[in-house]
Amino acid sequence: MAVMWTIILFGALSLLAAVFFAWVVHRNSPTQGTADEDQAERLLEIAAAISEGAMAFLTREYVYMAAFMALFGGLVWAVVDWQSMLSFLVGASISILAGFIGMQAATMGNVRTAAAAQSSLGRAFRIAFNTGAVMGFGLVGLAVLGLMGTYLLLDQLMAGDSRWHVMEALAGFGLGGSSIALFARVGGGIFTKAADVGADLVGKLEENIPEDDPRNPAVIADNVGDNVGDIAGMGADLFGSVAESTCAALVIGAVAFAADLGALLYPVLITAVGIPIALVSTVFARTRNEQMIESALKRTLVLSTVIMAAVLFFVTREVLPGEFEIGGVQYTSMGVYYCVLAGLVAGMLIGIITEVYTSHRYLPVREVARASQTGAATNVIYGLSLGYQSSMFPVLFIAATVFVGYHFAGMYGIAVASLGMLGTIAIGLTIDAFGPVADNAGGIAQMSGLGSHVRVRTDALDSAGNTTAAIGKGFAIGSAALTSLALFSAFLVRSDVTSLDMLKPAVITLLMVGAMLPFIFTAMTMKSVGKAAMDMIREVRHQFATIPGLRPSFELTERSLQAMETDGLARDLISRLRRLLGRKFATDAELVEAMRKEIGGAGNPSDETLLRRVNLGVKFGRPDYRRCVDISTRASLREMLLPGAQVILTPIVVGYLFGAEALAALLIGSLVAGVVLAISCANSGGGWDNAKKYIEAGNLGGKGSAAHTAAVVGDTVGDPMKDTSGPSLNILIKLQAIISLVFAPFFSHSLNLLG
Amino acid sequence: MAVMWTIILFGALSLLAAVFFAWVVHRNSPTQGTADEDQAERLLEIAAAISEGAMAFLTREYVYMAAFMALFGGLVWAVVDWQSMLSFLVGASISILAGFIGMQAATMGNVRTAAAAQSSLGRAFRIAFNTGAVMGFGLVGLAVLGLMGTYLLLDQLMAGDSRWHVMEALAGFGLGGSSIALFARVGGGIFTKAADVGADLVGKLEENIPEDDPRNPAVIADNVGDNVGDIAGMGADLFGSVAESTCAALVIGAVAFAADLGALLYPVLITAVGIPIALVSTVFARTRNEQMIESALKRTLVLSTVIMAAVLFFVTREVLPGEFEIGGVQYTSMGVYYCVLAGLVAGMLIGIITEVYTSHRYLPVREVARASQTGAATNVIYGLSLGYQSSMFPVLFIAATVFVGYHFAGMYGIAVASLGMLGTIAIGLTIDAFGPVADNAGGIAQMSGLGSHVRVRTDALDSAGNTTAAIGKGFAIGSAALTSLALFSAFLVRSDVTSLDMLKPAVITLLMVGAMLPFIFTAMTMKSVGKAAMDMIREVRHQFATIPGLRPSFELTERSLQAMETDGLARDLISRLRRLLGRKFATDAELVEAMRKEIGGAGNPSDETLLRRVNLGVKFGRPDYRRCVDISTRASLREMLLPGAQVILTPIVVGYLFGAEALAALLIGSLVAGVVLAISCANSGGGWDNAKKYIEAGNLGGKGSAAHTAAVVGDTVGDPMKDTSGPSLNILIKLQAIISLVFAPFFSHSLNLLG
Repeated sequence: MAVMWTIILFGALSLLAAVFFAWVVHRNSPTQGTADEDQAERLLEIAAAISEGAMAFLTREYVYMAAFMALFGGLVWAVVDWQSMLSFLVGASISILAGFIGMQAATMGNVRTAAAAQSSLGRAFRIAFNTGAVMGFGLVGLAVLGLMGTYLLLDQLMAGDSRWHVMEALAGFGLGGSSIALFARVGGGIFTKAADVGADLVGKLEENIPEDDPRNPAVIADNVGDNVGDIAGMGADLFGSVAESTCAALVIGAVAFAADLGALLYPVLITAVGIPIALVSTVFARTRNEQMIESALKRTLVLSTVIMAAVLFFVTREVLPGEFEIGGVQYTSMGVYYCVLAGLVAGMLIGIITEVYTSHRYLPVREVARASQTGAATNVIYGLSLGYQSSMFPVLFIAATVFVGYHFAGMYGIAVASLGMLGTIAIGLTIDAFGPVADNAGGIAQMSGLGSHVRVRTDALDSAGNTTAAIGKGFAIGSAALTSLALFSAFLVRSDVTSLDMLKPAVITLLMVGAMLPFIFTAMTMKSVGKAAMDMIREVRHQFATIPGLRPSFELTERSLQAMETDGLARDLISRLRRLLGRKFATDAELVEAMRKEIGGAGNPSDETLLRRVNLGVKFGRPDYRRCVDISTRASLREMLLPGAQVILTPIVVGYLFGAEALAALLIGSLVAGVVLAISCANSGGGWDNAKKYIEAGNLGGKGSAAHTAAVVGDTVGDPMKDTSGPSLNILIKLQAIISLVFAPFFSHSLNLLG
Repeated sequence: MAVMWTIILFGALSLLAAVFFAWVVHRNSPTQGTADEDQAERLLEIAAAISEGAMAFLTREYVYMAAFMALFGGLVWAVVDWQSMLSFLVGASISILAGFIGMQAATMGNVRTAAAAQSSLGRAFRIAFNTGAVMGFGLVGLAVLGLMGTYLLLDQLMAGDSRWHVMEALAGFGLGGSSIALFARVGGGIFTKAADVGADLVGKLEENIPEDDPRNPAVIADNVGDNVGDIAGMGADLFGSVAESTCAALVIGAVAFAADLGALLYPVLITAVGIPIALVSTVFARTRNEQMIESALKRTLVLSTVIMAAVLFFVTREVLPGEFEIGGVQYTSMGVYYCVLAGLVAGMLIGIITEVYTSHRYLPVREVARASQTGAATNVIYGLSLGYQSSMFPVLFIAATVFVGYHFAGMYGIAVASLGMLGTIAIGLTIDAFGPVADNAGGIAQMSGLGSHVRVRTDALDSAGNTTAAIGKGFAIGSAALTSLALFSAFLVRSDVTSLDMLKPAVITLLMVGAMLPFIFTAMTMKSVGKAAMDMIREVRHQFATIPGLRPSFELTERSLQAMETDGLARDLISRLRRLLGRKFATDAELVEAMRKEIGGAGNPSDETLLRRVNLGVKFGRPDYRRCVDISTRASLREMLLPGAQVILTPIVVGYLFGAEALAALLIGSLVAGVVLAISCANSGGGWDNAKKYIEAGNLGGKGSAAHTAAVVGDTVGDPMKDTSGPSLNILIKLQAIISLVFAPFFSHSLNLLG
């Protein structure tokens, strides 16, 4: 009982922490430090548009999710049992709730980060970090309490049934979490990239306006996409991993620890113990200057990993029996600790390697940048091989973890290794969510005309966020691989499969078919983004063509001149500037240039004066942001249908037609090929992105050079790969496995067509 | 004995047929139909340059091969036995010989095809086809006789030893063939693409001269590359497949058929029987017009497939015992027939699917072409997904074949299914080699200034050759997959592994590692091409900058004016044209345009008159072709070192460290991921290539449009994928497997580190 209460206590602590962080963020005014009323109004307006857009997407998605939950829940009921259906529904609902909280926090935090960046980098950093923490702690608290609550509920409802059966029914919880992740990752991934590509291709290339310009109709959709894809998507993905790994460990451990509730709940405890540790680490997340942001973020991660490793040693020894038996084999509690430790360490190592391959501080990305000098083709070739190459060490680390897990605690070892890798999830999610919040803040600053010094600060936050996001992606893939192996193991246990001989015809055949599935899935999701982006491009072009005043827009107004006078600009300079009244400029930079020309060297007003005040004169036709959000929403939900159907139907159909062993082979095939492909996609995309940024930082000819044009091609190719297809592969391998686990009883009716 | 003599007879027939086809090709004069002496001289000169370049590459490669054979042969001797070493050396030597014959034939046939195209499309077609047949029949004859000869030799040398041991030693023959394929496919693949990319990037893009222009220093290297990569590479690849599949089938069958030599030699007989059938089909390879070329080629393939299916029914029933036992399981001769048939049919189906995905007559390629309209990035995205998508059906066909094979005749079934797929190899190789010969002929026609009507004809031949080459690539991958599974099976038999349980830690771990290897290998080979191309680009730029007269080159001479007069051009027009004497033009087209301008509408001379005669005036500085060939040769041999070492060392190291089961898992991991990746690479590349050609044919804006520029990027990305990395993956999966088979005895000393 002590273990159970510890879990509940820590879970509650996590939720309390989330509420606290939310309160801290909310305490900041969304317009703090914004003296000008117009700007303040604009700030609130933009933030509201993003928030509304995000909610519009969620609302629409909820309708689809509800329909899906009803249908699929019914199927689970029909072919498995009502208990599994119940925990499926609970798991799905909690995942939805977690996503909702994350999105609310993000749309609350982004504007406050932007406003705070006006006065202090450190304060902006804290706000973005705390916003991420709302998501991190909220999600982990919900996961832990949800699992415990569902377990207690089922235990009550299934009184008299064995603990083993209770745990099998609990697997539905993981299925629920993972199903929502399908919507969030695949749908969200398509949404965000359709908006991004659409905004860039028309805005930057055709209309020649800067990124995040308020005149671009897709700009709000683009910012909504960051929340939808990177906050809700990543959150649901990792929520699924935790829920599924835990369920897998519980199913496998149920036989061994049926009489010992404390030992049985050990898998939940791993995650719960991570909560106070993560909480302590957040204290060390502080920075004063731009160079320190990244190390501040990484410090919290390393710190919580180290403390976790130490604490778990004692926890494991305390909670698990010194020796125990699973499936006729003897294992030790210390063995289990080694498994958890392997997961923890592998997670860190994968993060480091991911950074080496995707940061332009290191050789691989610089090679891609250099290859851009001979054109787009060589840039693409080098970027693709960077991705392929980068899979080597992560796969070796994952493979080693699998070996350690298997060796020291059999299938149970793999499941707890997975939980070990996810042990730092609260802090991991916090710094993951940090990125999109900072990104959004930058967008809001730009759109509200907060001036360039604010943008410089948010860019610094965003850049650090990009690096931690790359590390987070590595984590997500690694944990997805281990999770899906854990589920695979639990599936075998539930199906009474005790050996899986590759020399059986059905096994080797389905292994080949399984390896093909990630490729088909990737092809579909990549094309989905293409199609959704086309819809967006059409709409944006249409708005530019039809909405009056949307194109030429910056001009000096009487009001901004007055403001400059208040600022102390000499009267004669003001009167010279008056000549510019009524002239329209495509960008604010052009307007400032024209102003400088009028003034000549006289008075030499600071950049600040001109830049800050000129934006008061912004006049633009108001694009219909809502329509763009709507189009991205509809396109993403439409385009996720086919890949979604593939993931959900394949295991059910294969299991029914060919039986459990064949299905197991399919899962392994998908897993081994999917992991490599996912890592490749993510890192190719990250590499291209940063190769472009490396050039934009002034290297190899800088912005506007031929190398830059070539690098933009690679970056655009990488967008759907790193933000849609790659992350969606995590869902593919996990969802196929948990569906197999939950539907295992159904496959006993298999036709066994391959003998 | 009847079976043995039949094999020897058909093998001899094949060699005779090759000699016959060579004689038929050689009978044509290399300058037939070339009235002008200058042109004739130029024709011979260009052909000699290509031939010399090819031989220069081969000679250099032979040095490396000899060193490799000595080293690796020594290793085989040291850790396996001298018998395996002996057959390794024989297999390697025969593969080298087959490649040599193919290259000799190709460099003899290309110039004759070009010359014949001046007078008749049908004749040119026959010459190119017969050239391919020299390769096709020569190679198959050598394979069959080589296998038989080595068997008889070993049988003699190992008198008293069991047939099983003889067959195990014979596996070295396959190893020899496959090792040479490593050089030919990987080295050749890098050579051809380095030359191609180098020639294109500098010639077409920087110097703005047309493809195959004699002023381009890399043009000869490019044409040599077609021979090196597509003739020698493909030949060695398929030679390896036949040799290896046969060895695998012999090793597995040796236990069952030890007493029945006829049944034992059945695997060799399958290939031998294909010889007379292929010979009959060649009679139907005739065409009169351009539209019929492709169907003429396909007709021969379909015909030989159908006859083969019928004949093998009787052969199988005759040669194999009605019922027999392998590894304690009963199989029937009809079951074996089904396996062979499955391979035969799967090969055809894979060919058809490959065409659907890579020909611009069908939707997938047109989608890629359409995506080019929104830029290079969308072109690349769509091309990549085309490749991923295209793996579905081929993998399903291969998987189904594997299942049928396993189901009806266990591991023996997979080996004979592979031989079934390769049953039509003589004709397959013939139409495969047809492509590069036609391609070379086009290049020679262009370089010798044979006029545009000749080029139109060779282009038609080349285009048909491209389609059949795509089909051939599908075949090569499919047979590589089956071959490597067959070898894997033989390896297990030799290592006494009777089950391969994925639930063992070492197995699942190495399975993951194995799946990663093809990606690492692909990354390396793609970058190898990039680096080799850089070397080439530097050299070509250097030559353009330093060789006088290389750049501006076309001008009208007194001689060409005289020729026009002889052709009947009016005297006054000639005198008007005289004004152009001494002016230099970048292309012949520009010169013709200038001529038309001078003439005005007067006399209205036919395009023929102007175009044919203008080329007499070609004057160009002579580039140093030889240096380019040399650079491609050196770069390719240098760049193949790393990927080559990966392929050869991985199985030996893994087998030694972790034992036979772990190695088997590694092989399967590489196989399942490698096949999908190989198909994806090949078809993405093919798709991009034909999307570009579709646009060049005047669609979506045609040549010079923005869509075309975008499509060129995809085509360049696809070049190394389809001609280097993709085909090299065949070698990876086969070579790893045959090394495992041959070194199997060595792994009994394994350290078994993973327990």
